[in-house]
Amino acid sequence: MWASELIRRKRDGAGLCPEEIEHLIRGYVEGDVGDEQMAAFCMAVFFQGMSDEETSSLVKAMLSSGDTVDLCGIEGVKVDKHSTGGVGDKISICLAPLVAACGVPVPMMSGRALGHTGGTLDKLSAIPGFRTEQDITTYQRLVETHGLALIGQTPELAPADRRLYALRDVTATVESVPLIAASIMSKKLAEGIDALVLDVKVGSGAFMKTLSEAQALAEVLSAIGWGANKPTRVILTDMDRVLGRMVGNANETWEAIEVLQGGGPDDVRELTLILGAEMLILGQRVGSEAEGRTLLMEAIDSGKGFEKFQEVVAAQGGDPRAVEQRSGLPSAPHQEEIGAEQEGTITAIDAEKVGWAAMRLGAGRGRASDSIDLGVGIEMMVDIGDCVKRGEVVARLSHRDGYGTVEARKLLQQALIITNEGFIAQRPLVLDRIEEGKQ
Amino acid sequence: MWASELIRRKRDGAGLCPEEIEHLIRGYVEGDVGDEQMAAFCMAVFFQGMSDEETSSLVKAMLSSGDTVDLCGIEGVKVDKHSTGGVGDKISICLAPLVAACGVPVPMMSGRALGHTGGTLDKLSAIPGFRTEQDITTYQRLVETHGLALIGQTPELAPADRRLYALRDVTATVESVPLIAASIMSKKLAEGIDALVLDVKVGSGAFMKTLSEAQALAEVLSAIGWGANKPTRVILTDMDRVLGRMVGNANETWEAIEVLQGGGPDDVRELTLILGAEMLILGQRVGSEAEGRTLLMEAIDSGKGFEKFQEVVAAQGGDPRAVEQRSGLPSAPHQEEIGAEQEGTITAIDAEKVGWAAMRLGAGRGRASDSIDLGVGIEMMVDIGDCVKRGEVVARLSHRDGYGTVEARKLLQQALIITNEGFIAQRPLVLDRIEEGKQ
Repeated sequence: MWASELIRRKRDGAGLCPEEIEHLIRGYVEGDVGDEQMAAFCMAVFFQGMSDEETSSLVKAMLSSGDTVDLCGIEGVKVDKHSTGGVGDKISICLAPLVAACGVPVPMMSGRALGHTGGTLDKLSAIPGFRTEQDITTYQRLVETHGLALIGQTPELAPADRRLYALRDVTATVESVPLIAASIMSKKLAEGIDALVLDVKVGSGAFMKTLSEAQALAEVLSAIGWGANKPTRVILTDMDRVLGRMVGNANETWEAIEVLQGGGPDDVRELTLILGAEMLILGQRVGSEAEGRTLLMEAIDSGKGFEKFQEVVAAQGGDPRAVEQRSGLPSAPHQEEIGAEQEGTITAIDAEKVGWAAMRLGAGRGRASDSIDLGVGIEMMVDIGDCVKRGEVVARLSHRDGYGTVEARKLLQQALIITNEGFIAQRPLVLDRIEEGKQ
Repeated sequence: MWASELIRRKRDGAGLCPEEIEHLIRGYVEGDVGDEQMAAFCMAVFFQGMSDEETSSLVKAMLSSGDTVDLCGIEGVKVDKHSTGGVGDKISICLAPLVAACGVPVPMMSGRALGHTGGTLDKLSAIPGFRTEQDITTYQRLVETHGLALIGQTPELAPADRRLYALRDVTATVESVPLIAASIMSKKLAEGIDALVLDVKVGSGAFMKTLSEAQALAEVLSAIGWGANKPTRVILTDMDRVLGRMVGNANETWEAIEVLQGGGPDDVRELTLILGAEMLILGQRVGSEAEGRTLLMEAIDSGKGFEKFQEVVAAQGGDPRAVEQRSGLPSAPHQEEIGAEQEGTITAIDAEKVGWAAMRLGAGRGRASDSIDLGVGIEMMVDIGDCVKRGEVVARLSHRDGYGTVEARKLLQQALIITNEGFIAQRPLVLDRIEEGKQ
């Protein structure tokens, strides 16, 4: 079985059998299949797609390229949440402690920022002393002791995905539904979860720009989850906006903490309740969304969610008092205000441009090896539908010595579409759901 | 300019400008663009194609990745011939000396066998002592002194093509018209030629299986040649057959020598005259095809073509007496006959299978690093349209200790399609021509 022959068959539209996909992935990890061959294969998949069976084989092959964590000995239905990535998406940071505080264990492994989207790991690393790099044993102990772990992916899990992800990034083969789905699901299934909630982002700030693309991805993700006997719910949510007001690292972490403390922006709190209720249902803690929301609100009001967060911050080496006030987290020394270029109504916000603006300030990374500035970021002062006067402050940049402000200002001005229309309704937060797997 | 961004744009169907293509190719040669990126780019080109302008930019970029030979100081219009490769295609070996004997200088650089098609260089290396690896200075001297050089491509010419060719071979990105065209033309334009005759093979034994594919390639080749101010003629010839009776290395060289000595199979002699006449026209030696054929026939009958061949064999270190008789060239120690499996008419010959059969005996190579056996090969005893009795000898294998004979026998039996039809007309040798470039 030659790799070039398998690439050729995929190129020409043929389906590959499980053994052939396993052969390719194992060969790749073991060095018999080169980066150049895997890159050509990914590009062929971009054009020819993969059947559900092929995608499922790819997940299995990537999963079996490394270890799988066993959390069976830990009581409860372990549920994780994964988001496909957006701008201002800090939901995991408030969601995971709240769900854990409600009694459902959350074994959460997150990723770093790449491109215009942020990463939960970077946001968490804004907490002084907090260590996201933990080994499997510590991860298991965290879930067992605290019902919550907030760590980065360990190198033992799905190593094929790690290499493939880096390869796809430099070869323009990221935007392929089967490849995205296999990447997400191989990592998640290796974590030892019992069930999964997926937040598939749709819109200018997401990888999936249209609802139909997102639905296609959602269907595949759902099928893989259920196929692996892991009840999976997929919520498709709006990313034609910035989620919350804050974009950056420390400022996003703080906005999530505000939700844990009973405050925070409406949309961040609402999405936390929506996703949290799904996790509590899958975790067999509640029977309905309404029941789930009530339980989560109680965890906020009682302070139990925030206590759980502080407990895990301490367990992972962080300073639990540092997360009590904004001043406990890093901030950039300089501020700059952006004024509206004209009078009118904010008709649209190009969230991707806002994400790139934050990246220019140093909040994100263009390449995996770039370092980031945890203190810099953007505060959005307006939302879709707001009326503004010319010169009115629409955003605030937190920057370090002016680094990247010229490009960030330009991108922000481009991102805000101001017209003379009178009333603009924002898209609903939830655009679609897939709750049950195909039988 | 990021390579990944250029790959993405090609992937999404956009055209690249000359600077962008130059950036990619130069980056590839200098190491800034990785094999994995170039492989993804080639696969994107496979699916999205390239405009004539892009292909022309690719040729220029590959050409300028290395040196270009200057043959301007040498008198005469220098004309080369290139074939896209087929089974039993030994034409260069008799064609080049005949054209040179008629007074048109032929600076010929050839390639090695890969896959089911043979390579002129391997066939020539069957001549004892003959050295095909020559440096540029020797090449220039050979053309100046003898009006003929029969050498392999030197490493200074189009190094980008050398790397790309090896890359495409292992990544299933060979079968792309712009990539094939750029590979051929960058090498040919680097040789220092004034004009070019191209033999584009069409059929089961060729890379281009259908006439329409071959015509598309021919159009692009012609456009590139004329675009570089090199008058170019493209002849599309039949490869739903084996050219001549011999497939292998020493036995093909001998069949070409038979043509030089006034014998040889009809189709080999005829194609030599057709291509030779075109070369003499482009070389401004004759005004018409008829005149060219007459001149070439004279060079055969007078022995001047064979003398020219012996002259160059000697100039390149070979033994000129070794090419006077079949026994001067290597041959395999063992013979085996293949009998017809049934009675009937030979309706078709799958030339690709015959090529693979020869490869199994050791005459070709699966990978560039494989070594080959110059003495082994196949002699076809029948042609399309012939009637055979069951058990009648249809082919003879020359092999070494039975190596590969089981697979070769099986492939040959599969290659010969014998039916009950009464009369079958073979396709004409010449299927189409492109004589003038688009203005």
